[in-house]
Amino acid sequence: VTYCLALRLDEGLLFMSDTRTNAGVDNVSTFRKLHVLRPREDRAFVLQSAGNLATTHEVLDRIDRDLAGEGENLATVSRLFEAALYIGGIGQQVVASHRAALGDAASATFIFGGQIAGERPEIYLLYPEGNYIRASDTVPFLQIGEAKYGKFFLELAVRAHVDLALAGKIALSAMMSTARANLSVGPPYDAAVYLNGSLEMQEVRIEATSPYLTELADVWSEELLQAIHALPPIPDELRVL
Amino acid sequence: VTYCLALRLDEGLLFMSDTRTNAGVDNVSTFRKLHVLRPREDRAFVLQSAGNLATTHEVLDRIDRDLAGEGENLATVSRLFEAALYIGGIGQQVVASHRAALGDAASATFIFGGQIAGERPEIYLLYPEGNYIRASDTVPFLQIGEAKYGKFFLELAVRAHVDLALAGKIALSAMMSTARANLSVGPPYDAAVYLNGSLEMQEVRIEATSPYLTELADVWSEELLQAIHALPPIPDELRVL
Repeated sequence: VTYCLALRLDEGLLFMSDTRTNAGVDNVSTFRKLHVLRPREDRAFVLQSAGNLATTHEVLDRIDRDLAGEGENLATVSRLFEAALYIGGIGQQVVASHRAALGDAASATFIFGGQIAGERPEIYLLYPEGNYIRASDTVPFLQIGEAKYGKFFLELAVRAHVDLALAGKIALSAMMSTARANLSVGPPYDAAVYLNGSLEMQEVRIEATSPYLTELADVWSEELLQAIHALPPIPDELRVL
Repeated sequence: VTYCLALRLDEGLLFMSDTRTNAGVDNVSTFRKLHVLRPREDRAFVLQSAGNLATTHEVLDRIDRDLAGEGENLATVSRLFEAALYIGGIGQQVVASHRAALGDAASATFIFGGQIAGERPEIYLLYPEGNYIRASDTVPFLQIGEAKYGKFFLELAVRAHVDLALAGKIALSAMMSTARANLSVGPPYDAAVYLNGSLEMQEVRIEATSPYLTELADVWSEELLQAIHALPPIPDELRVL
């Protein structure tokens, strides 16, 4: 599978993706699923993908080819939602061109986000059908792929009104929890951070061997055990022991 | 859906089930999915169900009818795995009798556990096909239904070598997390606790309006926020902020 998440915080945007791909359990590999796109100085984007890997690669190549051409592309669109629709359209075209051979197996889902100067930074979920939704103000995050294990963490981050630094830790915790539960999600983990108004995307890759990942898992585990012990005792009227 | 879990701890067994059922989102109701069975003094069982509700009810009724008859039943089997196979067989018969009308839509999955005097207490997952697996020593819990959201909590309980009282709190936390994420899982929550060797099953129902549930959710939320703040900062070499 895949696990990609994106958070829209007061300070900026945070994107994180795993890198594991598999065609069956006996063909596991590592591919980037988080791509930074800087088509022009006045805009910075991230595209994250889940679904058919070949479709994702062709979408990226078509985006790149369009940038060298005369027609609509990521440098010419004037609004972020137009960029989202443009990528959604490319996705549809790629899937359509392979439908005879693959049916719906070529489909892919994307998270797309970033900022165009003068607009509010935003994150979008792009459906395989080419349309999109934005993250809402009450639930300012999006996930694609194996989203059930990490949802809990992201909700926590939102409830805590965390800043980008803290959100990074929480996103990593969500990643590690998902990877532990689902073998088809795994490190290295790619992250991109966008500070509102900066028009620059900062990238990082956290390797599986990073001592920080181990430290994070250990501390998290210890803290959770403490949290569990702090839970109030089951009251007498409910007690069964 | 449904969420049922069972833990096998050093001290005994813990079972917990939600009670929400739905035929579509516009037909939601409350039904017991955790059933205590005491067919004879030397044994105490719990049966939890996920899947077709009508199948579950007919399975329970057939178990009850068999107890009044001459053939094999839950009072005559001498080993726990035979009881598991017996219930698995009943499940198959019920599904087969409705297959013409329902196909596989009648299928149900069960958690079955308890103790027969002289045997080790155990929990089993009964497949719709009538066979079973036991919980393992390294992963001494089972889940049926919407199992992804709660897994994290149960793993934590196991890692912490908790006692039954603490396991009860953790199981409730898993329940509430699942219910928050999936509308088709909801309170009241039924629990059964079994102390090894007691041959008695202690039951409790925790109502949606229980102030304890609110208190538990509040404390848990607060503790988790503290845990998040205690996470180590992202080190400089990985830092993107």
